[in-house]
Amino acid sequence: MQIEFFFDTVSPYSYVAASQVPALERRTGATVRWRPFFLGGLFKTIGNRAPLELPAKARYLWHDLERLARFHGIALRKPDNFPFNSLTAQRALAAMDDDACRAAAQQLFQARWAEGRPIDEEQSLTGILGSEALAGAGTAGARDALKANTEEAAERGAFGAPTFFIGDALFFGCDRLHIIEAELLAGR
Amino acid sequence: MQIEFFFDTVSPYSYVAASQVPALERRTGATVRWRPFFLGGLFKTIGNRAPLELPAKARYLWHDLERLARFHGIALRKPDNFPFNSLTAQRALAAMDDDACRAAAQQLFQARWAEGRPIDEEQSLTGILGSEALAGAGTAGARDALKANTEEAAERGAFGAPTFFIGDALFFGCDRLHIIEAELLAGR
Repeated sequence: MQIEFFFDTVSPYSYVAASQVPALERRTGATVRWRPFFLGGLFKTIGNRAPLELPAKARYLWHDLERLARFHGIALRKPDNFPFNSLTAQRALAAMDDDACRAAAQQLFQARWAEGRPIDEEQSLTGILGSEALAGAGTAGARDALKANTEEAAERGAFGAPTFFIGDALFFGCDRLHIIEAELLAGR
Repeated sequence: MQIEFFFDTVSPYSYVAASQVPALERRTGATVRWRPFFLGGLFKTIGNRAPLELPAKARYLWHDLERLARFHGIALRKPDNFPFNSLTAQRALAAMDDDACRAAAQQLFQARWAEGRPIDEEQSLTGILGSEALAGAGTAGARDALKANTEEAAERGAFGAPTFFIGDALFFGCDRLHIIEAELLAGR
């Protein structure tokens, strides 16, 4: 079985989900394919609004994330600037093959959300990904690959991040991982 | 410890949450106070949109709910008309004392979401709540009580249903019950 995991490194809920992916694979035997997309582009395409645009949701967001991080036993560092621009990071990931993408995405999530290092500045990004990967982000191929992933997510029904697919079945949010697990273990 | 549970019987996610409340009380020793409010009024007050207003979310909603219901082992019947008007039902609940409200709310959730009986028609509502409770829904006291609950929820930061509070701490969604449980058991 394969699970597709559409994520954006700007999304703290994608970080929470990413932290749980290895355990999900271990418990279900499924393989997770990491699919970088651009959340800002998705919101624009489908006319959704980021949670921060509603004051009550913006006030709730970090409280919720702090508790989720505590529940899962992971670190969480709130960025000084949020939402920051993840376009270069996401393009770099989109230009990689699956294995490299997975490893680099985990490094980016760890750097930004656990260690509090910026991933929207060239120097910091180079330190995390290496200069070759960062150069890759600047190519037309990287731009087109990220755009294609984002458009594919929109066409398949995504409206936020993280979004998981098992075939056509869409699962939204880091709080659906236990549902994915139950569905897989029940053979559905 | 007391947990406040703001719910609307029109909200299928409130139904899922309601089905888990007795087990939450049992496992944590906390008491849940049932607080009926009017979700349509809340959305209007704070400028939020119902999930159905975004096509991608509307397409996702029932798939997600079917899987949640399966996960929790509860029945789920999709209404022919949704969202239906829950104002009379919610006013009837708001006019009751806490114990009566809890019992009647569970009856309404069960009737609408497990058995597929309408709760927006007088005859059906009378059959579920009794004629006295239905008459209570028509009073100025009931109207004011529901309005006060809705305004209180908005002022305390709610933006959807179900919403839980432990003191000032807000928890949104039926998928935060395990977080509430973890926080309570850790003595936070």
